Formats: sequence, C-alpha cells, structure tokens
Amino acid sequence: MTSTRDDSHGALIARTVASISTPDLEARARAAARQSQLTKPPGSLGRLEALAERIAGITGADRPRLERRLVVVAAADHGVAAQGVSAYPSEVTAQMVANFLAGGAAVNVLAAHAGARIRVVDAGVAAETPLDPRLVRLRLAPGTADFTREPAMSRAIAERAVAEGIALFEAERASEGTDIVACGDMGIGNTTSSAALIAAVTGRPPSTVTGRGTGIDDARYEAKVAAIEAALALHRPDPSDGIGLLAAIGGLEIGVLAGVYLAAAAARVPAVIDGVISGAAALVAQAIAPRTVDFLIAGHRSVEPGHAATLEYLQLEPLLDLGLRLGEGTGAVLAITLCVAACRLLDEMATFEQAGVSDSDGVVPPEA
Amino acid sequence: MTSTRDDSHGALIARTVASISTPDLEARARAAARQSQLTKPPGSLGRLEALAERIAGITGADRPRLERRLVVVAAADHGVAAQGVSAYPSEVTAQMVANFLAGGAAVNVLAAHAGARIRVVDAGVAAETPLDPRLVRLRLAPGTADFTREPAMSRAIAERAVAEGIALFEAERASEGTDIVACGDMGIGNTTSSAALIAAVTGRPPSTVTGRGTGIDDARYEAKVAAIEAALALHRPDPSDGIGLLAAIGGLEIGVLAGVYLAAAAARVPAVIDGVISGAAALVAQAIAPRTVDFLIAGHRSVEPGHAATLEYLQLEPLLDLGLRLGEGTGAVLAITLCVAACRLLDEMATFEQAGVSDSDGVVPPEA
Repeated sequence: MTSTRDDSHGALIARTVASISTPDLEARARAAARQSQLTKPPGSLGRLEALAERIAGITGADRPRLERRLVVVAAADHGVAAQGVSAYPSEVTAQMVANFLAGGAAVNVLAAHAGARIRVVDAGVAAETPLDPRLVRLRLAPGTADFTREPAMSRAIAERAVAEGIALFEAERASEGTDIVACGDMGIGNTTSSAALIAAVTGRPPSTVTGRGTGIDDARYEAKVAAIEAALALHRPDPSDGIGLLAAIGGLEIGVLAGVYLAAAAARVPAVIDGVISGAAALVAQAIAPRTVDFLIAGHRSVEPGHAATLEYLQLEPLLDLGLRLGEGTGAVLAITLCVAACRLLDEMATFEQAGVSDSDGVVPPEA
Repeated sequence: MTSTRDDSHGALIARTVASISTPDLEARARAAARQSQLTKPPGSLGRLEALAERIAGITGADRPRLERRLVVVAAADHGVAAQGVSAYPSEVTAQMVANFLAGGAAVNVLAAHAGARIRVVDAGVAAETPLDPRLVRLRLAPGTADFTREPAMSRAIAERAVAEGIALFEAERASEGTDIVACGDMGIGNTTSSAALIAAVTGRPPSTVTGRGTGIDDARYEAKVAAIEAALALHRPDPSDGIGLLAAIGGLEIGVLAGVYLAAAAARVPAVIDGVISGAAALVAQAIAPRTVDFLIAGHRSVEPGHAATLEYLQLEPLLDLGLRLGEGTGAVLAITLCVAACRLLDEMATFEQAGVSDSDGVVPPEA
C-alpha cells in the first residue's frame, strides 16, 4: 500500500483530484421522484428524505444500498502537545491504538452497532504501536514537530500522508468493498492542530474556534489559544494550499483522513465527517479539491466550537446533535446508522400504488 | 387479552398506576460511576452518557441491555375528520393498517433497521381491517364521535382503551419479552385530537399548538383550529383527569398508547415517545399517573408545534431533530437505535484499567 518514491505521492493526489466529478443530478432526481410515490405524506420523513437523495446523487444509484461500511480511525502524535495544550499525556495515543485493536474503545462499540468494520491507522504515533496485522502502520514520523517553532512536517511528508490516505481507501474498497466511510481520529494535541487549520481556512480568530478538547482548565486553554496564534503568525499558511496547510500546522492523521475524503469523492462513496479533527481534515481536502465537499455528509455537531465554524464554511448541516466531543469517528459511525435508515426507507417502502393507499387527492391508484 | 367486564378496566388501570414506582437512583449512580471509568474523557459521549444512565435508573440495571425491542402502532379513526381537518380521507387509516401488516410502511423499514418487532393495533378503525392474526383487532368503536358536537367517546370506552393498552403491553412482555418500547400511531384526523389534548393539558392557546399534520392548506388549517377551539369550549375538560380528557377530545389509539406508557412504567421498561400523537398519549398517561414521565424517553422533535409544547411540559429533551412529521412510531423507533447504542457503550467499553490507558492525571492504573 505504501508508495516508495516521493514524486509518486503528488501524482497519486493529482490523479485522484482529477477524477472527482460532480454529484449525479439525474440519479438524485429519480430518487426524489420515487420518494414522492412512497406511502407517506410528502416531506414527512424530513431530513431523512434529503439525506437519501443526497446519497443517490453521490453514488449515482437511484436506490443506494449502504451495505459495506467502513470506519477509518487514523492516529498520530503532535509536537505541539509539548506546549501543555492537553489534559492527557502523549502516551495515550499509542495506548488508545491498542484499545482500538482490542475492541474496547467507544468507536469499536459503535462500529459494531452500525455494522461497520474498522481500519486503524498509525499515521505517526510517537510511542511504539502493536505489530498487529490489522493495524496499518504507516508511522510517517514520530509525531509532528512543535508547530509553534517550526513546520509540523515537510511538504513531502504532508503529500505522503494524503497519498497514503488515498491508497488506504482504494485498497479497502478493492478488497472488502466500501459503500460508505466514516472518518475518525485519535491523537493527543490534535484539537490544537485542528483549531489552527480551522482558523487558517475560515479566517476566524483562533479564540473563537478553539475548544477544550479532552477537557482542559483555563490555564491550558490559554496556552492552547496562544500556541495557535503563535503558529499562524509564524507560518501565515495559504488557505487555498491544502498541502501547505498540513505541512505548517497539520497532523499526520489529518493528512491521511484528507486523503480518504479525496479518494471517497473520486470513487463516489459518501464520506461522513466526525468531529473537529475529522472536520479539519475535510477543510484540507476541500483546499486540495473543492468538489470533495459535494461527497461529504456531516455526521454530528460536536460541542467543539471550531466544528460549527467548519460545517458552516463547508455549508453542511449535521445529522446528530448529542453533545459528543470524543472523536475516534464515534459521531460519524453513529450517523452512518441514519444514512442506512434513510436509504432503506427509499429502497424498501411501498409506493401508494403497491400498497393500495389513497394519496392526498383521495384517489386509490387504479392497480391497487 | 380483552377484558369483558367494564369495572375490571378501571381496576386494571388503578392496579397499574399503584405499581408505578420511581427510578432506581442507586442503579443510576452505579451506571454513572462505571461511565467515569470507561476509556474516554469524562462527559465526552455527551447525551449518550445521560441516556444510558437514565435507562439504568428506569430499568434498575447497572448495565441495561435492550435486546427485545417492541414498537406498538395503534390505529383509529376520528369523527372530527368530518370537519375537513385532514388532507387525506379516513379510508387511509385502514389502508395504512394493511400496509403495516404487509411490511411496506416507513415504520416497518425502521423497525427492521432497529431490530424491533411491530405490534399493530386496530383500536377503532372505521373501515374494515384485515382478519390477520398479527393484528390486534380491538375495534373499540368505529372511530370516535365528532368532538366538536359531542364527547369523542364515553368514559367507559376511554377506560377500556387505556386498559387494553395495559393488557397488550403486559401480554407482549410475557410472551416475547420487552426491554424497550416505542409508541406509534396512525389515524386520519388524529393530529387534531392531539392538539386539543395538548392545549387542554398545557393551557396553551390552540392556534399555538396546532400544526399542518399530513400537510393541509390554509383553509383546512383554520377549520382545524376552529374545531379545537369549539371542542374545548364545549367540553372544558379537566387537565388532571386523564380518562375525562380522552373521553371528551381524545382518540381510541391515544387511549391505547396511554395504557402502554402506564404498563411500561409499572414494568420499569423505557418507553419512547414518537411525535405529536404519541406525545399527547403521554400527556394523558401523566394525567392518570404523573410518575409515568420518569420512565419516558423523547425520541425526536417533530415539526408539529404541539410536540415542542408537550416535551417542554413533560420536561423531556428529544434525542433526534430530523424534521420528521410522519408518526407511525418512526421517530421513536429510530431513537431506539440511539438508546441501544448508549447502553452498549456503557456495557461494552473497556475501562482505563482494563485497557491500560492513562487517565487525565497521566497515571496508568497499576493493573494495566
């Protein structure tokens, strides 16, 4: 799965970006037409109707089936954690990777609940991670550098992270099939990198898009905002340069997830955004290829303030609003259950004609 | 299942009300204590944590499992439909009952999605319904009377409807087991009855709690509000008399669902409210037994304005907000998937100690 020559990474990204098309408006219209014939008052299934129609447009299928469900959980460490921005030590990143492999984390439970398989990726965890064949051990670097002092990573590594995300998604799709993908993360310090990316792309002041992550006190919160302000002043990243954003203030897991979004869009597979990190990766993906946004679904509204800014920027309305702020893909995989429900309704409900039910004009269709 | 002597109905209701206790605060506290040991930052699963703890309190189990899931869909007709309050003719009620039995309605698809079985009840459909052994054919009356002119039903029939709901739930629980129940409805004209009940119980003006149901135009909307105002002026129902409310302005399916809520509360089984009709039934149940509310879960926020008033009155916060307004139990059964997810997280996640993950003090528990 790992490409070896650096120039091939840029080529893979360029090829993927070039193959991202637009939603299939005809499939979407056929789905909407079917929706109007199903045994329910028009519009009475609310956002589930719009959701199924969006997925029809993304996939190009009139009656999409979301049977093969994937959650990608990408993990990495962050040099900025040295600035005291998290309540947890960096060792937790590797410990949680082990927990994902053992099946004990929240995302494991919710993936089982949603009938989704999990692919865990060590994009660049500082501590050692298990030699487990189920773990994709990219280990692109032992975490990022502290971006308050220097770029988080080189452009070459940033490109490689995105390319690895693309390759990973393509391999998953080729081997086990993927009808929908949820993008999750793990990485102590990664809400700091995400808030920096969100501030850089949306142009909002860091203090308005920075939250308390795992749950930090006032002193750490001030250190977090200060770190982001320092990084933006130091690097002045160009918001339209996705690779440049990643290299300056991003994370290795964020790069991998950005690659997954690009590959999913190219393959016409709906990709579900989780929380603030997953959302920041979507901002990076749209900086690389703006059309990616048309293939995304916002899983939930995280309580992290930067997430609302991200979704507003991407013009996406989240499906769930349950006060989640865990990451790992938990909100996204829970939202997959709603996507599945919406598509099953479109596919499996009877029409007025099939069921012999009168429509709002009081007419039972003739074949009933 | 059907009791034959009228006085036995009142006795069954009284016995059920007397056996409704309070949530088990110790089980709830044990669930909360376990929650704090699971591998996630405290509170990071947001409302899913509170939901699992509420279900622990309702059921009395520290780690509740919601394996046997039931949706009760009660159908009936409404005499007030003669006032031109709906976009659909009354025949649709019986046609939709047939659709439920054939598996073609939205609630069938969502129940399959949620792993729930459906029990369809003809509480009082005007037209003939199928002689299908899966249909509970109570047929307490051929629909209600037009409550703008006379009481919707007698007190004896109102009591019987509630008692049948209790007997139905108890029989379902005894035969196939029930760990959670969702309450759905079908009945042309029933948003009118529900809005009348909501106005009567909450004291709000009818125009503020009346919506457009299946989707009616301005003329029908005005007729609907006028019908409710006329009924309230005629009957002046006592908001603390649940049977009196049902008799004056209620519906047969609403009475059955109120009985299901009472029986579920008595059995410590969480009951999920769907939309505006299911919510009106919960108002009737709380008028009969105020403690019932502690055993309820609000599935979703319907777009019907009366539903928000109901949930505010009951002090319940809905789980989903997807713009649904179909009824049938669709929003409630979709919310069951969230209840299941919340309980699985509480039950199945690893603790910090089990997983060898450092907590926020940076300490790996000693046995890791």
